Amino acid sequence: MRILILGGDGYLGWPTAMRFSNRGHEVHVVDNYLRRTAHREAGSDSLTPVAANLPERVAAWKDVTGLDIGVTEGDLTEWDVVEHLFTSFRPEAVVHYGEIPSAPYSMKDREHAVFTQTNNVVNTLNVIYAIRDITPDAHLVKLGTMGEYGTPNIDIEEGYIEIRHNGREDYLPFPKVPGSMYHLSKVHDSHNMHFACRVWGMRATDLNQGVVYGVHTDETRLDDRLLTRFDYDDVFGTALNRFCLQAVIGHPLTVYGKGGQTRGYLNIVDTLQCVELAVAHPAERGEMRVFNQFTESFSILELAQLVQKAGAEVGLDVDVEPIDNPRFEAEEHYYNPAHTKLLDLGLEPHLLSETLIESVFAEIQRHRRRVIADHILPRDRWSPVAETTTS
Amino acid sequence: MRILILGGDGYLGWPTAMRFSNRGHEVHVVDNYLRRTAHREAGSDSLTPVAANLPERVAAWKDVTGLDIGVTEGDLTEWDVVEHLFTSFRPEAVVHYGEIPSAPYSMKDREHAVFTQTNNVVNTLNVIYAIRDITPDAHLVKLGTMGEYGTPNIDIEEGYIEIRHNGREDYLPFPKVPGSMYHLSKVHDSHNMHFACRVWGMRATDLNQGVVYGVHTDETRLDDRLLTRFDYDDVFGTALNRFCLQAVIGHPLTVYGKGGQTRGYLNIVDTLQCVELAVAHPAERGEMRVFNQFTESFSILELAQLVQKAGAEVGLDVDVEPIDNPRFEAEEHYYNPAHTKLLDLGLEPHLLSETLIESVFAEIQRHRRRVIADHILPRDRWSPVAETTTS
Repeated sequence: MRILILGGDGYLGWPTAMRFSNRGHEVHVVDNYLRRTAHREAGSDSLTPVAANLPERVAAWKDVTGLDIGVTEGDLTEWDVVEHLFTSFRPEAVVHYGEIPSAPYSMKDREHAVFTQTNNVVNTLNVIYAIRDITPDAHLVKLGTMGEYGTPNIDIEEGYIEIRHNGREDYLPFPKVPGSMYHLSKVHDSHNMHFACRVWGMRATDLNQGVVYGVHTDETRLDDRLLTRFDYDDVFGTALNRFCLQAVIGHPLTVYGKGGQTRGYLNIVDTLQCVELAVAHPAERGEMRVFNQFTESFSILELAQLVQKAGAEVGLDVDVEPIDNPRFEAEEHYYNPAHTKLLDLGLEPHLLSETLIESVFAEIQRHRRRVIADHILPRDRWSPVAETTTS
Repeated sequence: MRILILGGDGYLGWPTAMRFSNRGHEVHVVDNYLRRTAHREAGSDSLTPVAANLPERVAAWKDVTGLDIGVTEGDLTEWDVVEHLFTSFRPEAVVHYGEIPSAPYSMKDREHAVFTQTNNVVNTLNVIYAIRDITPDAHLVKLGTMGEYGTPNIDIEEGYIEIRHNGREDYLPFPKVPGSMYHLSKVHDSHNMHFACRVWGMRATDLNQGVVYGVHTDETRLDDRLLTRFDYDDVFGTALNRFCLQAVIGHPLTVYGKGGQTRGYLNIVDTLQCVELAVAHPAERGEMRVFNQFTESFSILELAQLVQKAGAEVGLDVDVEPIDNPRFEAEEHYYNPAHTKLLDLGLEPHLLSETLIESVFAEIQRHRRRVIADHILPRDRWSPVAETTTS
């Protein structure tokens, strides 16, 4: 199958590209290195030393496996780039990671909020129109986020909910209460995609993903030149990966607020499994399918305690240190999201274990000299305004 | 009160500005003449001859009433413009009509879709951030649209719905199934505003308005230099106003498809009443209030028949001619949206009547020589793609 990977230079995009290539698919990756640029500007970096750019990555891949992956270094907000990609490659599946993926980035200030929303919304609109006008049978597999839902006081369903109201009923999009300008951009995308499916008959799968952890996939293990990135900084780092790094370098685990914030999590190898399952079982024409993509739920405090325990096993003395929550979020809340649809397609979860955490410790240890410690703590508060001021 | 009117050159913005000025408020209007530009490019125009620009409009207003209205000719997507407006005028209420208001415009092609969404979303983000950082007590009164909801098979509530699910319940944003790239942009705005209220304590009222009809308000009647625009073309014209014009010039009333499409409608004088009520009774800090702003529902066919009947009264021989529906919408559907919150605040509706329609006929007759007949029929199909093509 011809599979286009948007955001193919990312933490998940690059391993996904290698996986599909390894399975014998024809793969093409696109990226504009937005995350690398943001890191360079901030003075932060990936823990793992990743190859300099996509041409070097695919050259290493070719060297190791003999397989070809096509590359475009370009910006998906530019229609010329998108049009050329679709007319020349004619994808049958489009795996869309090509967005700014960071809530803290989007919450820095007005400019970052506007940039995040326009970048993500315009990217996705361009992709939708390319599918409509160039490859209408192509299946869009789009990475959304569980953060689109927020933390409602009812069970979260997968994308839609049957609502009975005043004696009538309808099956409608699940209400969204997202918690950052970034999460909002994904909600906007979901509405735009739903429209394209309803009106133009696009086939789409929206993967509302939880927080991904882990360092390695089968392909990244083949050669150090094939490593994927590992972010632990205040902007692009995510909970479990950051805790593991903090444990290794002897930094207290920074739990935001009460630590009762509960989220869905999954191993990076399960991200690849889920995306493969979605691609292998495409949505129907006109269908906008939504899968909640995670395998387990943990509170932040539970995660910290797991890391602490795994640390003790390997002789690391790990402290847990609650810090003032820079985010605006419920620190204690109900959380029970459905996540059966990917299991129904055959997902076999790799659940979090101490062994896994210990293997992440080991990998971090290997790159420890690269840690930039002053980018670990949060710098931006999301709710900086005083209660009421006189205007 | 200091009231800032965004989109103050528009069909509703200009009459709103005059109304608040007439009531003794300090009013400032902003517009970048986007609609005038779109008309000029398309070769279409307002039926009514409106003053050349905002400085001429406010000069005429001053001449007629002795009252001052401030003017900024500028683009709200430019932060410098917005920042200067808020720091210099320090609005207490912001009435936000400053968006591209046309579904057909947004559905012309990819470029118009991207432009509509970025223009509207960035405008509103800039306004939200200006309120957050410059005038945090200001009340944002934002024009949304009933089209955000689509036509679900359940009663539409005002912005939120109590959902009971698996033995638990929550009061959540009403699910949105909008029918065009323009309507989607308003859904995006609503989510962004809801976030700003929840996280930053903004006070906002989202007015989900129905289709507005009518030519005159108390202020436009004072002098022909104070007329507001009247659009009847395929891009900016709306149902009842277009039917009235078609009736006067002897064009069959163009009902799209079966004509069972039911929508909420209101008189332009009631738009002003609703906006005045919202401004006079501001939302609380942190509250995102949603009002469904219309007074009556009609199907398109009912509207056509009303116009036909009113035409007969004044000797016009009016045909109704169903044409192929260029839009993608249900032509027969359930429709029962709540609209009590503005009535509770004191709205006294001016319901549609034959007398009103006849007065619109008379006003159209007065400007009949200005009609550009070849811009009446729809030009763009919203769903141009064949069912399935091989990619």
